[in-house]
Order: sequence, then C-alpha cells, then structure tokens
Amino acid sequence: MTSLTTPTITAFKASPDRGRGLARDFRVRWALEEVGQPYDVRLLSFAEMKETNHFALHPFGQIPTYQEGELSLFETGAIVLHIAEHHDGLLPIDVQAKARAIAWMFAAVSSIEPPILELETARLSEGDKPWTKDRLPLIVDRIRTRLHQLSIRLGSAEWLDGDFSAGDLMMVDVLRRLNGLDVLGEFLNLVTYMKRAEARPAFRRAFDAQFAVFCASVAPESQIQR
Amino acid sequence: MTSLTTPTITAFKASPDRGRGLARDFRVRWALEEVGQPYDVRLLSFAEMKETNHFALHPFGQIPTYQEGELSLFETGAIVLHIAEHHDGLLPIDVQAKARAIAWMFAAVSSIEPPILELETARLSEGDKPWTKDRLPLIVDRIRTRLHQLSIRLGSAEWLDGDFSAGDLMMVDVLRRLNGLDVLGEFLNLVTYMKRAEARPAFRRAFDAQFAVFCASVAPESQIQR
Repeated sequence: MTSLTTPTITAFKASPDRGRGLARDFRVRWALEEVGQPYDVRLLSFAEMKETNHFALHPFGQIPTYQEGELSLFETGAIVLHIAEHHDGLLPIDVQAKARAIAWMFAAVSSIEPPILELETARLSEGDKPWTKDRLPLIVDRIRTRLHQLSIRLGSAEWLDGDFSAGDLMMVDVLRRLNGLDVLGEFLNLVTYMKRAEARPAFRRAFDAQFAVFCASVAPESQIQR
Repeated sequence: MTSLTTPTITAFKASPDRGRGLARDFRVRWALEEVGQPYDVRLLSFAEMKETNHFALHPFGQIPTYQEGELSLFETGAIVLHIAEHHDGLLPIDVQAKARAIAWMFAAVSSIEPPILELETARLSEGDKPWTKDRLPLIVDRIRTRLHQLSIRLGSAEWLDGDFSAGDLMMVDVLRRLNGLDVLGEFLNLVTYMKRAEARPAFRRAFDAQFAVFCASVAPESQIQR
C-alpha cells in the first residue's frame, strides 16, 4: 500500500539537538521508514516557521507538518496514525489490538511527554529564574512516577502490547527526549526497550537521514572555522 | 451502529470538581451521548484508583477507563476515537477530512492541554512553594500563546474543520479545564465556540449525568449538616 503521492514533511533547517534526532520530525521519519514509504523533506529556519504560510499548515507554528497531495496534517500522533492506517506494519489488523495500540500512541503524547516537556520548559524558558534549581527535582519526580508506572506495565515484554506498533514507536521517541537523564537509568527494562527499538533498521535509516541534514547545516560553519 | 455490548466507564466516586464536569470522564460521556450509545459507570474512590486491579486497566492509575466486552482501553483520546470509529456522527466519512479531525484530537491533548495541566500542577502540587505566585503569570502566558494561535485558526468558523467532530469535542473539553480563567475571555471566538458546543443536547445529557453522580456523593454529607 504505497501512496501514489510522495509525502513531504517539514523539519528544522538547523535543529537545536545537534544531530541527535530529538526533534519531532524524527518519529514521522521513523514511521515512514518502517512502512517503506519514500518522502521528501522541506527544511525550515526558525524565522520561516513563524511566517503566515507556515501557520496555514501548522496552527502552532511548529515542525513537522505532513503534506500528501491535497492532504495537510500536523501533530505527530495524527501523522503517524495516518501513515499506519494507510500502510501495513504499524498497527495490528485485529480491531481490539489496534485500539489498544492507538491508546499507547495517545499515552505517549498526553501522559508521558507532558512532564518531559515541563522539564525542557523549566530549563529553556525558566533557566534564569531563581527557583529553577529547586524545581527541577520536583519535575524529575513527576517523570519518575510515570516511568515507574510504564516500567511496571511493560514488565519483561518486548513491546507494550503484542508486536511492535505505532504505540511503541511514539513511546520510544518520547522517551528519547529524556536523552540520557539519570532517571531513565533507574528503569532497566525501559532502557532495554528503547535499545530494542533503536536497533530496528528503520530507526537507523531515519536517524541517518536526519543526521545528514545536521551535517549539511554545520558544513559551512566548519569551513569557516578551518 | 450500536455496540452489542454496553460499555462501562470509570469515573470519580467524589470528583474534586464539585459537579462541574471537569474530570476526564466527561469527554467520554459526551462522545457516548453524541452517538447515542448507552453506557454504564463504575465509580471509584481515590484509594480504589491506586489498587492493583485498577492499574491492570489503567497503567497510570487514573480515570476514565473504557471496557466493552473483551476490550479494555485507557487514554481519553483513544477512547473517543474508538467510539467515533464504531458509530456515525463524530468523524467525517471523507478520508482526508477524517485525518484532519483526528489531528485536532491530538492537538487538544498534546498541544493545548499540557500548559493547562502545568497550571493545575503549579496550583495543586506547588501551591505552597515560594515561587508559585511569580510563576503563574508565566504559565498563563504559555496558555495565552496557544489560545491565540487556536483563535486565529478558528477565525469566524463554527467548528475547527467543517462539521462538528471528535476534534471539536476533545478541544472544547480541554478548554473547559480553564474553567473561567480570565485569559479565555480574551478570545471571544473561543468563548462562543465553547458555548456553541455546550449547547449541544448530548453535552447537556453528559453534564446532567455526571452532576447526578456529584449530587449523590454529597447527599449523605448534606444530611449530616442538616
């Protein structure tokens, strides 16, 4: 089931993650690689993301967006679900198992990601505030609570519910935003779960693709430094 | 398309919202009323929500859960999507319009709700901290940014994308968590949008159903006070 129209996604021209693949285009790239759907990428500067024609595609002025012919989507959960609905391999065929996999997609973006984002916001937007040093451990505790619950649910299973699904893809990519924070190491089954996902060939292809963008973005800078 | 099995949802035995219908079971009740699907409710105390058999249904120990025969779901986005997929009326038939409505469902829980939850967390979990008074305006500013973007996108339209959909249902219910905060009043089209949704007969039925639970929960207390 390959689309007739090659989709185009948007991504940062110069991602602040320095090539670590932590921006939200990564989960869309990974999903497209899992299903074998070729795609184009349109890179945007921060200034371009705040222009009116980008807001027409993304109401919150962010990346990624997804365009496929006449269809234009935003929100990574919706984009990955759309890809999974129109290709084989990311959602179970059984109706009940599919609904449960979608529950994990929502869990990733609405139960696990919010406290992780709160930590990023505290560091980036409130990094200069006198309270931030004392607040960070409180936020880490909220993240720890969620990781603990997720760790218990996963137990010794390979994936969250049966075979690898879009639910695991979204969850692992959200956990990657913790990016080596000590709290993650407290839950060895989650670390193993992430490594298992990151070893997938589609993950590696997606990683290499975004890393190539990063390398291209720093190339002129390196030449200047030379 | 009425299910053969009547679904059972869980809700707070004594909601901290004092009958205002702000807990997350509300959006599920509303969706079930929109599609005319009868349902049962199992009420849980806070202690019962933290018991092992509830964690088997909900990995994060929250309400609501949704059980329909053998199927067990958590995450309101996934539950509402499941209801919308199996009944008429909450998602467009057109494939592209449907994908866009689902994008608004994800936008509600992963772009609009997080800063609103951050405000609730600041008040409830950090209410006694010396920094909270100075932090609240910063969080309200983050909420304002999202409301501003949402307001621009909505413009003078009745609903976010074409007819009323599960995307509007989720978005309005998330906005209701602002519960009369001044910042909402700055965006008159959002206020009108919410009133339009709240005037729907299904909304009223859902509201009355949860209010009846609240009244029952305080009845013994009233008798003691008498």
